[in-house]
Amino acid sequence: MTILPTLVKGMRDYSSLRVYRRNYILSTIQSLYALYGFEPLETPALENRTTLTGKYGEEGEQLIFNILKSGNFLEEIASEMRFENYKKIKPLISDKGLRYDLTVPLIRYISANHRQMLFPYRRYQMQPVWRADRPQRGRYREFLQCDADIIGSTSLCCEAEILKLIYEVLSALQIRNFCIKINHRGVLSAIADAEEQSEKEKIFCIIVDKLEKIGLEKVTAALQKEGFSERTIAFLSSFVNFKGDNGQLLAQMNAAIGHTDKGSKAIAELTQIMENAHCLGLPEAVCLVAPTLARGLAYYTGLVIEAAVAHTPIGSLGGGGRYDHLGDFFGTTGLFGVGFSFGIDRLYDIMEEQHLFGSVVNYTTEVLLANLEKKAEPQLLNILNQLRSNGFKTEIYPNPVKIHKQLSYANKKNIPFVIMIGQTERSTNSYALKAMQTGVQNSYSWPELCDVLSKALAVK
Amino acid sequence: MTILPTLVKGMRDYSSLRVYRRNYILSTIQSLYALYGFEPLETPALENRTTLTGKYGEEGEQLIFNILKSGNFLEEIASEMRFENYKKIKPLISDKGLRYDLTVPLIRYISANHRQMLFPYRRYQMQPVWRADRPQRGRYREFLQCDADIIGSTSLCCEAEILKLIYEVLSALQIRNFCIKINHRGVLSAIADAEEQSEKEKIFCIIVDKLEKIGLEKVTAALQKEGFSERTIAFLSSFVNFKGDNGQLLAQMNAAIGHTDKGSKAIAELTQIMENAHCLGLPEAVCLVAPTLARGLAYYTGLVIEAAVAHTPIGSLGGGGRYDHLGDFFGTTGLFGVGFSFGIDRLYDIMEEQHLFGSVVNYTTEVLLANLEKKAEPQLLNILNQLRSNGFKTEIYPNPVKIHKQLSYANKKNIPFVIMIGQTERSTNSYALKAMQTGVQNSYSWPELCDVLSKALAVK
Repeated sequence: MTILPTLVKGMRDYSSLRVYRRNYILSTIQSLYALYGFEPLETPALENRTTLTGKYGEEGEQLIFNILKSGNFLEEIASEMRFENYKKIKPLISDKGLRYDLTVPLIRYISANHRQMLFPYRRYQMQPVWRADRPQRGRYREFLQCDADIIGSTSLCCEAEILKLIYEVLSALQIRNFCIKINHRGVLSAIADAEEQSEKEKIFCIIVDKLEKIGLEKVTAALQKEGFSERTIAFLSSFVNFKGDNGQLLAQMNAAIGHTDKGSKAIAELTQIMENAHCLGLPEAVCLVAPTLARGLAYYTGLVIEAAVAHTPIGSLGGGGRYDHLGDFFGTTGLFGVGFSFGIDRLYDIMEEQHLFGSVVNYTTEVLLANLEKKAEPQLLNILNQLRSNGFKTEIYPNPVKIHKQLSYANKKNIPFVIMIGQTERSTNSYALKAMQTGVQNSYSWPELCDVLSKALAVK
Repeated sequence: MTILPTLVKGMRDYSSLRVYRRNYILSTIQSLYALYGFEPLETPALENRTTLTGKYGEEGEQLIFNILKSGNFLEEIASEMRFENYKKIKPLISDKGLRYDLTVPLIRYISANHRQMLFPYRRYQMQPVWRADRPQRGRYREFLQCDADIIGSTSLCCEAEILKLIYEVLSALQIRNFCIKINHRGVLSAIADAEEQSEKEKIFCIIVDKLEKIGLEKVTAALQKEGFSERTIAFLSSFVNFKGDNGQLLAQMNAAIGHTDKGSKAIAELTQIMENAHCLGLPEAVCLVAPTLARGLAYYTGLVIEAAVAHTPIGSLGGGGRYDHLGDFFGTTGLFGVGFSFGIDRLYDIMEEQHLFGSVVNYTTEVLLANLEKKAEPQLLNILNQLRSNGFKTEIYPNPVKIHKQLSYANKKNIPFVIMIGQTERSTNSYALKAMQTGVQNSYSWPELCDVLSKALAVK
């Protein structure tokens, strides 16, 4: 039977060009994370299902790629064997899943190792995650995340460092029109304060998070449906209408909720964080106070961050904030931290849109050694070895096909130089070098050849 | 409910030290692969189950981590719903799986894209694979592979390049006592030739592959059980007893099977490959002809390669060879190639055993900026920013705790330098720099400080 060589839906291959470009993004981020003193952590793709479902509940459950148990996975499910309840059967036939973010593995790692660990712990992690979402344009089921978190300190210096780091990354990638929106979870708490219960506050944040996407009218309807009071809804609307620079926004917020404990604390912290970030060199204009920014995830407890690019359909480039209770479901109390996560595929798309990959090298091989006749191969292999010993990324065309075909191969692969050694070259002990970009061809002695290539390729 | 923060069995976290060391291996391999003109390819972790089971059949089936279908995965299985046949139910509730090698995704990729691709195609791929094996010491269920393959050429130059590349990688990593064993699948074919059927030849290779592990006696028993003739078994035993250097071994092989078509072709190719490798600079002593080397996988058709270290319980460091029919199950004929795969975790273990990680940098942060008093934080953040602008990997201790604790933190994290700015330093506009290795502490002006750090850290 012939099998169709199709990809799993929502997943992609990365050919060399995509890998070069993605590695450019990754190495830029990685070197900045390292400059900021973050150390690397990597965790396995698979986590126990209990770990994955523990924190995010039903919402997370839907995103998990579940792994079938090995062996007889039907053994334990006799009593559950009715067709209505496949959701109940799932944990009985599946005990692990693919991670769908890097935060749960981080917290699992810290909870398992915190006694031997050193705090404050600054870790970065650059690995793929998988989400069993419905695939659609720009939304993939496998994608790379780059997280940086500082765990174990309540100092507001940490928040400032994260903000500056985001700025440095987006600046280094030369992304235009980006901004970093910030808010404080306490602001939303203060707005919804009349509702009292913390469970309702979560729902409030999830609904408010949709403001930009669905507008105030639909958010209002959703809040009404959930039983939020007219007072809270009106209060929220007033926040949507706040205008001005950061100072003016903070003043308006202060007038509205500054008299409450939560409100005054949130505004004081936001102010302090921006002052710290300023000391760290963050330009004022980059950071925008967004009084209704929520970020759906329930776990933020302080600063909430979203990086975005104005005037583009591509959503946020990443998000983050402070969280103070993440370890609780592992029984690890006192695990507080602040962090941020870049979505690499979003960065990639925006960089493509803004034509920022121009200077990224889009080839591996620098020199193609043409193969003109079978019987010369021993000599060619010898030269090949010497070219590589000199640091030139070289390949040999493995068969003595027509030179036209070999040059066309070099051309399509963006190989900048081709070396040809024919009858004439052999008799004069010289090397014909063709520069593919210009088409210029010259003959050189071996030392001259190495010199020309070294200069052109800036071999280290 | 509290959840235990356990790892999935057979999987591991990689703390910073492991990541630094593994990245050292990966970047060494990557730069050599690039020097040899290979270009990168990355493929998704998940492949369709039909793709994964298509090539390797039952053997592969057992290694796959199956992903449960999303939604109601029980819907289609009413008629199969008996408990004896869970294997039949598997494809009905699971339609994708995690890749368990990088060869199947490569072949799937080429089969899907070969019309737009350029051949010969030299690709490398460094990504994790997953195997639902029983976990045991040294055998993990998630591990990294680094493959390099040349697809689309029958030239024996390719074989030589792969052999030299293996030599370069193991030499660059400074691994001692390694050797590259080679054989030709035609040698085994010639030994088993009396048995005729190609299906039996596969079984023959799988059994012979166990020679080193279980010995000739058990291999003989296994071959008898499968109905191989006494002639074939005796023939194999004579091959086990061949002794001498490569030339002597080839002569003995030639005497035994040189009169057969398969045998003479195999020996001629092996000889040619070694000559080519010699032209490429491969030292004679590194390559050992191993007349009974089989490598279990059925897909090799020519050269068979195994890299190993003598006198160690750690098995092979990787394997490879030439394969000429891999694309067949996708209906893509004429897909021939030669390649090799390094198992990074095996390399890691052997390097640990041989103490080869001594020179690998085992820290990120180069400078810790001590935090001595809360009110000085704005100034500290300013200095932090300037240190980073100068390229020093710097972190600030985020809270003004006792200096003893901060120095101990630097010590445990291998941070080489700590900068302290107290009352005295502020009044004299100077910076106290402590070198953690020596304990020596000196005061410097800002330009002096940058100069001292630049020299010590060799900032690029």
